[in-house]
Amino acid sequence: MSDKKWVYLYSEVKQAEAYAGDWEGVRGLLGGKGANLAEMARIGLPVPPGFTVTTEACNAYIAAGNQLSDEMWNQMLAALAEVEKQAGKKFGDPKNPLLVSCRSGAKFSMPGMMDTVLNIGLNDDTAKGMVELTGNERFVYDSYRRLVSMFGSVVLEIPDEAFEEVLDHMKEEKGVKLDTQLTAADLKTLVEQFKAVVKREKGFEFPQNPLDQMRLASEAVFRSWNGKRAIDYRRASDIPDDLGTAVNIVTMVFGNMGDDSGTGVAFTRNPATGENKLYGEYLLNAQGEDVVAGIRNTEKIEHMAKDLPEAYEQFLKICDLLEKHYKDMQDMEFTVERGRLWMLQTRNGKRTAQSAVKIAVDMAKEGLISKKDAVQRVTPTQVDTLLHPQFDPDAVKKARKEGGVYATGVNASPGAAIGQIYFDADTAEKMAKEHKQEVIMVRPFTKPDDVHGMLAANGILTSEGGATSHAAVVARQFGVPCVVGASSIKIDLNKRQMTANGVVVKEGDWISVDGTSGEVYLGKMDVKAPKLEEQVELLTLLEWADEICATEGIRTSVNGSPSRGLQVWANGDSPEDARRARSYGAKGIGLCRTEHMFFDPARLPIVQRMILAKTSEARVEALNELLPFQRGDFEGLFEAMDGYPVIIRLIDPPLHEFMPDEESLLEEVITMRVKKETAGLEEKETLLANIRSMHESNPMMGLRGIRLGIVMPEIVEMQVRAIFEAAANMTKKGVHVKPEVMIPLTGHVNELKLIQPRLEKIAKDVMDEKGVQFPYKFGTMIEIPRAALTAGEIASVAEFFSFGTNDLTQMTYGYSRDDAERAFLAKYVEEGILPKNPFQVIDRDGVGRLMDLAIGEGRKARPELEVGICGEHGGEPSSIEFCHLVGNNYVSCSPFRVPVARLSAALAALKHAAK
Amino acid sequence: MSDKKWVYLYSEVKQAEAYAGDWEGVRGLLGGKGANLAEMARIGLPVPPGFTVTTEACNAYIAAGNQLSDEMWNQMLAALAEVEKQAGKKFGDPKNPLLVSCRSGAKFSMPGMMDTVLNIGLNDDTAKGMVELTGNERFVYDSYRRLVSMFGSVVLEIPDEAFEEVLDHMKEEKGVKLDTQLTAADLKTLVEQFKAVVKREKGFEFPQNPLDQMRLASEAVFRSWNGKRAIDYRRASDIPDDLGTAVNIVTMVFGNMGDDSGTGVAFTRNPATGENKLYGEYLLNAQGEDVVAGIRNTEKIEHMAKDLPEAYEQFLKICDLLEKHYKDMQDMEFTVERGRLWMLQTRNGKRTAQSAVKIAVDMAKEGLISKKDAVQRVTPTQVDTLLHPQFDPDAVKKARKEGGVYATGVNASPGAAIGQIYFDADTAEKMAKEHKQEVIMVRPFTKPDDVHGMLAANGILTSEGGATSHAAVVARQFGVPCVVGASSIKIDLNKRQMTANGVVVKEGDWISVDGTSGEVYLGKMDVKAPKLEEQVELLTLLEWADEICATEGIRTSVNGSPSRGLQVWANGDSPEDARRARSYGAKGIGLCRTEHMFFDPARLPIVQRMILAKTSEARVEALNELLPFQRGDFEGLFEAMDGYPVIIRLIDPPLHEFMPDEESLLEEVITMRVKKETAGLEEKETLLANIRSMHESNPMMGLRGIRLGIVMPEIVEMQVRAIFEAAANMTKKGVHVKPEVMIPLTGHVNELKLIQPRLEKIAKDVMDEKGVQFPYKFGTMIEIPRAALTAGEIASVAEFFSFGTNDLTQMTYGYSRDDAERAFLAKYVEEGILPKNPFQVIDRDGVGRLMDLAIGEGRKARPELEVGICGEHGGEPSSIEFCHLVGNNYVSCSPFRVPVARLSAALAALKHAAK
Repeated sequence: MSDKKWVYLYSEVKQAEAYAGDWEGVRGLLGGKGANLAEMARIGLPVPPGFTVTTEACNAYIAAGNQLSDEMWNQMLAALAEVEKQAGKKFGDPKNPLLVSCRSGAKFSMPGMMDTVLNIGLNDDTAKGMVELTGNERFVYDSYRRLVSMFGSVVLEIPDEAFEEVLDHMKEEKGVKLDTQLTAADLKTLVEQFKAVVKREKGFEFPQNPLDQMRLASEAVFRSWNGKRAIDYRRASDIPDDLGTAVNIVTMVFGNMGDDSGTGVAFTRNPATGENKLYGEYLLNAQGEDVVAGIRNTEKIEHMAKDLPEAYEQFLKICDLLEKHYKDMQDMEFTVERGRLWMLQTRNGKRTAQSAVKIAVDMAKEGLISKKDAVQRVTPTQVDTLLHPQFDPDAVKKARKEGGVYATGVNASPGAAIGQIYFDADTAEKMAKEHKQEVIMVRPFTKPDDVHGMLAANGILTSEGGATSHAAVVARQFGVPCVVGASSIKIDLNKRQMTANGVVVKEGDWISVDGTSGEVYLGKMDVKAPKLEEQVELLTLLEWADEICATEGIRTSVNGSPSRGLQVWANGDSPEDARRARSYGAKGIGLCRTEHMFFDPARLPIVQRMILAKTSEARVEALNELLPFQRGDFEGLFEAMDGYPVIIRLIDPPLHEFMPDEESLLEEVITMRVKKETAGLEEKETLLANIRSMHESNPMMGLRGIRLGIVMPEIVEMQVRAIFEAAANMTKKGVHVKPEVMIPLTGHVNELKLIQPRLEKIAKDVMDEKGVQFPYKFGTMIEIPRAALTAGEIASVAEFFSFGTNDLTQMTYGYSRDDAERAFLAKYVEEGILPKNPFQVIDRDGVGRLMDLAIGEGRKARPELEVGICGEHGGEPSSIEFCHLVGNNYVSCSPFRVPVARLSAALAALKHAAK
Repeated sequence: MSDKKWVYLYSEVKQAEAYAGDWEGVRGLLGGKGANLAEMARIGLPVPPGFTVTTEACNAYIAAGNQLSDEMWNQMLAALAEVEKQAGKKFGDPKNPLLVSCRSGAKFSMPGMMDTVLNIGLNDDTAKGMVELTGNERFVYDSYRRLVSMFGSVVLEIPDEAFEEVLDHMKEEKGVKLDTQLTAADLKTLVEQFKAVVKREKGFEFPQNPLDQMRLASEAVFRSWNGKRAIDYRRASDIPDDLGTAVNIVTMVFGNMGDDSGTGVAFTRNPATGENKLYGEYLLNAQGEDVVAGIRNTEKIEHMAKDLPEAYEQFLKICDLLEKHYKDMQDMEFTVERGRLWMLQTRNGKRTAQSAVKIAVDMAKEGLISKKDAVQRVTPTQVDTLLHPQFDPDAVKKARKEGGVYATGVNASPGAAIGQIYFDADTAEKMAKEHKQEVIMVRPFTKPDDVHGMLAANGILTSEGGATSHAAVVARQFGVPCVVGASSIKIDLNKRQMTANGVVVKEGDWISVDGTSGEVYLGKMDVKAPKLEEQVELLTLLEWADEICATEGIRTSVNGSPSRGLQVWANGDSPEDARRARSYGAKGIGLCRTEHMFFDPARLPIVQRMILAKTSEARVEALNELLPFQRGDFEGLFEAMDGYPVIIRLIDPPLHEFMPDEESLLEEVITMRVKKETAGLEEKETLLANIRSMHESNPMMGLRGIRLGIVMPEIVEMQVRAIFEAAANMTKKGVHVKPEVMIPLTGHVNELKLIQPRLEKIAKDVMDEKGVQFPYKFGTMIEIPRAALTAGEIASVAEFFSFGTNDLTQMTYGYSRDDAERAFLAKYVEEGILPKNPFQVIDRDGVGRLMDLAIGEGRKARPELEVGICGEHGGEPSSIEFCHLVGNNYVSCSPFRVPVARLSAALAALKHAAK
C-alpha cells in the first residue's frame, strides 16, 4: 500500500501546489474546476466545502480496469468526514443530512462532455429529515427526483427518455406545462415512479445508501473520461487522452429553495463581443442545470439587482476580484441559497474570436497583461474566423426589406454559414463527410451527444436555448456560426422538416445562417470578404505580433543556421491578389503562378497554338503574342508590391493541362466515326493524336517545371523577358521593384546550371536594353526530395529556396494528393494511422526532416540564402511554427491567411524564445 | 619558361618513373604504347629507337588553344637528335635518311580511335636517297605514296576517298587487283598524283621538310584526342576526357622490304577462346597497317615458322618473356626488316568474355596470378556476355541441315544477335535509338567513324577483314556479336541490299548473326539461354568471387553499421525462376511478386470478380478460390529454394491494373450506344463505371501496396494464409523453409503497426493448425522517401528492409519512369545533365543518401536488421558496389544477372578492402 495522496480538500490547495509544483500542475492534478474552487477558497471567497479526487486517481482507476482502490475510497471517506465538520451536517443523517454534488473536472474545460450528479445523499430517510429541517417538501422531492433521474441516466446508464416519458406523462396528467408547476405531492409521486423506472430497467433498487451513491457516481465520472462524446471532444480540441478527469465532491447549495434563492452563470466581459461589461443569465428558484441546459428561459443577470440586491452587489465585487486575480475574463457559476451567495465555479471564459481579440487588446491597454500575453490570448483559428466571409450587407439589407428573413434567434456564434439542413447529428456528419455536402445542423436544442454533427456542419440552428446553452458554447469554441433559440421555428423531427411563419423547409433544403446577426435566410445568401481595416483591435494585435517576430524571432535554428525573424508573404497571381495581400500585412509575394495567366480565355488559344507548334519559330511567334499579356500582369504586380520582393515562378504544369480534355474529345471522335460524320473529323483526330502524344501515366512526376524549361526553353525565355521588361518599365515609373525568378521542380543541380545562366543573360540583356538597373534574384523551388537531399549543391547556383511543400509532401510520402485523399487518406487520418493530414500540417519527421536538412546544408553553401515556403502549409499554424524552428525567412500563404500566419509566427517566436 | 620535361626517350624510362611515381603513372604520362615500348627497351627487347611526347604535353597543347610551345618543339628536336645517333641515320639526310612513325598512345588503349602517320621523313630528295641506299625503288615509292595519303587524310583532313579514287583508277588502268601488283613506276606516278590531290584539296604543296612533317603529324595526333570518334569511344568505355594522348616518334622499320621482311600482330593466348596458344596473323612483305586494316588476307602466325624461322623462334621467346613480365596475355605488333625482328608494341590484349574468364582462371591455376587477381581480370560486362542467350542448338542444326545458313565468316565476337539490317552507321544508330528497332549493322568493313553505329547495333556483319580487323576488335571489346570476312556476301551500298548465293537481302530485312560460330542465318533464329553449368572456368571464378565476398566483404559500412559480406539473391516469381536462380548461385529469393500470379488467364476472372465484389463476403469467397493457386505457387518456390530464405511480397499494384482496358471499353460502349445495340450494354456500362471509379491521376502514388492492404485487408490476409499453408505443407515434406513476408510501400510506421500484427497472427494460426514450426520474418520494402527518412521507427516493427530502388528513384527524383524516359530523361543523360540514368545506376547523392541513412538508423533501432535491395539496380555493378559500401546483406536481381552480381560484389569487396 502506497502513501499516495489521491484526495485533496479545498483547504489543502497549498499541499496540492507543493506536490504538483505550480499552478499549471495544480490544474493538471485537481482539474480546472477543483483547482479554481480551491483557489477561490484560498482567497476567501464563499465556496461550499468540498474535496477533489485527483486526475491521477482517475488514471489509476482506468489502468486498474475501472477499479476504485480501497486506499482511494478510504481517503474519500476521510475527506468527507472533514467536509461534514466544515458544513456542520452529516452524510446520511436523517436529522441534518449533508447533500453533495459529484462533478467531473479535467485540466482543460470540456463543458458538458463528462458527467455530473447532484443532490447525492438524498434517500427516503434523509428526504424526510430534510422536509422537517426546511419545511419545504416541494423543494426536497424536487431535489430527490432530480437525483434519481440523474443517477439513473449518468451512473446506471438508463436512457434519459425513460425518465422524461414519466415526467411528460405526469405533466400531461396534471395539465401543466412547466416542471415548476408540479406540486410537492406530484414530485413525491414522481420520485416513486422514477425509482420504479430504475428497478424496471436495472433489476435492482435505487441505492438508498448515500455512500454507495457517492462511490458509484464518482466511478461514473471517472469512466465518462473515456465516453464517446468526451473522446470526440478531445480529438476536436487537441486535448491529450492521458490527462484524466478529477472528481469534485461539493456540498450542495440550493438555488431552488424559494424566491430568496436562485442560480446563474455569468462572464466578466461579453464573450461574444468582448465588451467590458458583465454578461450572464440567472433564474430565480432553480438549480444550475436549468440555466445551462437552456430549457427554461432565463433572465439577464442585471435583473438580479432587483430580485437579490445584496447577493448581486457581492457578486459584482467578486467578479472584479476574480478577473484581476486570474488576469483573464472569467466564466462563473453561482447559487444563492436563501439570500446567501455561493461561488460554484470560475474559469477562464470561452469566447468568440471577436471577443478574444478585443479582450486581449483591451486588457493589454488596461495594463492588466503585457502585449506578449495579449498575442498569446488569441488563437490563429480565432483570427481565421474573423476573416471568414460574412454575408453581403447589401444582400442582407435587401432580404430584410423584402421579408426574406426566415427567422431570428440569439446570435450565439458569429459568422456566415450556408448549407443544406439536416435534423440529427449522425445524418449531418454523414452528409458532410461522405457526401461532401455543405451542411447546417438544425435541432430543437443540442446535447453533448450531438457534438460530432456540430463539428461537421457549416452552421448550427436551434429553436430553443440561450446564449450559454450547450449549442452556443460549443459553437463559439469551434468557430461554427450558430443561431440559438429561434423560437418561431417549429421542428418536426418525424416529418424531417421545420416550419416558421407558415413556410416549410425540408431536410436537404438550403438555408443561410448568420451567427453574427442571429438571422436565418432561405436559400443561399451572397457572401463577402470582411474588411480587415475595419477590425481595429485585430490590426493592433497583428502589429504587436509583427513586433514580436522581429525581436523574439531572432535566434539560431535547429539546423544551426541563423533565423532572422519569420516574415509573412503571400501567394498571389494578380495585382488584385497583391493589393489584398499587402493590405493584410504581407511583406512580399512568395509565389506568383504564371501559368494561371495562361488560362485566361483570351490567351488560351494562343497558348494551345504555342504548344502545338511544329517548329521553334512558330512557337516563338505564339509566345511573342503572349509576352505583352504577361508583361502587363507583372507590371501590375510590381506596382502593387512597390518596395517588396515579388517571387515569380516560371511555368510549372505539364502542357497537356492547357489542352482540351482528352476523354471528351475521344468520345466525340468515336461517336463521329461510328456515325460516319466526316466533316471536321480529321481535324479532331489530329488534335486528339496530339493530346494523346502528351499523355503521361503520372503527370505529377512527368514533363513539367524545369524539365519543360530544358526541353522547350522558348517558354521560360519569354517569361523571363516579360518579367524583366515589366520590372524595367515600372522602375522608370519610380516603382521599387525586387523581382525574384523561381525555377520549379529542380531535382539535380545540373538542371539549374544549364538553365539559370541562360535566363540570367536575358535579364541582363533587358536591363541593358532598357538602360535601368534593379536588384533581382534567381532561385528554385525545393519540392523534389532529391533537391532537398542535395541542397548544398543546389544552393551553389540558386540564390533562394522556396519549399513547395505540397509536391514535396506528395513525393516524400508517395501520395498523389488527388487520388490519396479520396482513396485512403481520409481513412488514415480518421483511424489515427497518420496523426494529421500531411497536406494540411507539415509532417515534421519526414517532409520536415528534408526541409531542415536542406536549409542547414543550403546555408552552409550560401550563408545569405533566402528561404521560404509557398505550399498551402504556409498558412497553417503548426507548420509555421516548424518554419520558425528551422529558420525560414518567410512563409507565404494565400492573402486571406496572412493575418493568421502573422499571429502564428509571433506565437512560434514566443513559444521558442530563449527563456 | 618552365623546366618541364615534355619528351622522354625510350631509354629514359627510369626518369619517367621517377617523375610519375609508379608504373601506372608512367602509363598515364607516356601512354600505354610509349610506356610499353620503353619497358620493352629496358628489359632488352629489340625496339626501334624513339621517344614519347607526354600526355601532359597534349593537355597543355589543347589548353593553349592547339598551340605547340617552342619548349616542347625544342625538346622534340633534342630527342630526335638522340634517336638519329642511336639509329645511325639522319632525319632529312638524302644519303642516309631516318624515317619515323608518329603514333598516338593514350593511357587506356583506344585501338584505331586516334591517328597514326608512318614513313615521316620521306620527301622527293630522301626518297631518291633511299632508293640508292636500298636499291628497292618499289618499296620506297610504296612507302612514299603511303606517307602522302596518310598525311593527307590524317594531318590535312582530306577525305580518304580522294586518294582511294586515284588508286582505284590506277589499278583499273593497269588491270590489277592488288596494290602489291603495282610496279615501282606505277607507285612513283601515284606519289605525284597523290601530291596533286593535296595541292588541289588544300591549295599548297605536300610539305617536303621532314621537320614540318613531324611537327604537323604530332599536332594532328594531339588534336585527334578530341575528335568525334575518340570522344564516342571514351564515352562508351568510361575513359575520362582529361587524360590526353601521348605522341610516339619511332624509327621506322619496314616489313615491306622484300620476302625476308614481314609484319604481324599476335596474342600470347587466344583472345577469342582463351586457349593458351599463340594466336596471330602476319603478312610477308607488308607494312603493319595492311594487317590491322583487314584489307589484305593474312596468314596465320604459325606460317611464319616456315617463312622467317629465326625471327619466329626469337618472337616465341619474347612472347613468353612478355607474358611473364606483365602477368597477362599480351597483344603485340612486330616487324621483321630484312630478317631482323623489331617489337613495335605490346599491351595487355583485349579479349572476349570467354577468353577473359579462361585466361584469368588458367593463370591463377598456373600460379602466375592470385585468385583475387583472377577475379579482378574479368569485368561484370564480360560475365553478362557469357550468359547472353545463344541460338537454340537444335534450330541451328536444322538450319545447317536444310541449307538455311546464308553465309559464313570469321567468328569475331561471340553471341547471338537478331535484327534488321542497315548498311551505314548513321542509319543503324537512328533505327536503334529513335525507332527502337533491333538492328544488325552490315558493312564491307568498318572504320573508326562507324563506332556509334556498331554500339547501337545488336550485331555486326562484315564481308571483309579478319579476326583482328577493326570491326572484330571493337565488337569484342563491347560484347557485340560480330561476324567478319563473310566473303560470299556482296554488298551493294547504292541499292541498299546484299547478295549471297543469289539470295538478296534488303535493308530492313531480318537476319540472325552468330558471333560464336561465324554463321549468318536469314530471318529470326530461336534463341536459348546458355547453361552456366557447362562453363567450367566461369563456375570456378564465381566460386572464388563468393569466397572473396565472405572474407574481404566483412567490414564496417560507411553508415557505421556492420557489413557482413554481400550475398546475391534473385528475384523470381515461379519455381522455374527459383531453380534457375539457384543454379546461377543465388542464395535466396529477394523478391517474389505475388501479383504476377494473378495475371494467369485461369485466375484473372476470379481476380476481377474479387475486385468488383460489393461485400467483404463476396470478396473473401473469390479470394478463397485464389488461395489454392497461390499456395501451389509458393510450395514450388519453397521446394526449389530448400534451405534458403524466400521473400514474398504481398500485392503491390493498384487494382485497376487487373481490369480490362478502360479506353477500349469506352469505345465499345459508345459504339453500342450510337448503334442502339442494347444487348449487354448495361453490363458493359456498369463495368466501365466501375473501372472509371478506380481511375487515378497518378496511379504510381495511389491506392496500392500497404495502402490497399489497409483499405481491403482480405487480399493480403489470403496471401499470408497461402504462404504459411504452403510453408507448413513443405515443412512436413522435409523441406527447410524460410519464408519472409514483405509489405510494400510503407511510408509511416503506423501502417505497419496496424497491418503487421494482424498478418503475424494469421501466420501463427496456420502453424498452430498445421502443427509445425519454422522460422519466418515480416518486413517491408523501403521505396517511399519517407520510409527511409523514418527508418529508425519502421525498423522497430519491420524485421527486414528491402530497398525498392525503382520506386525510390521515381519518388526521390519525382520522375514517373514511364513518362520520364520518353519525355526528357534520354535527353538529360545524353546532354550530361544527369551523369547516368538513375534507373540503371543508383544515384548515390540522392537515392543513395536515403539508403545510407535508412540502413544506419534502421540498424541502430534493430542491430540484426536484414537489409537488401530488390530493384533493377540489384544486378548493376556500380549499384552493387554502393550496396556493399552501405552494408547491405544482399542484392537481389533477375536470375540471369546473378553471376554478374556475384562478380560485382567480389570486385566491390576487393576495391574497398582495408589496405
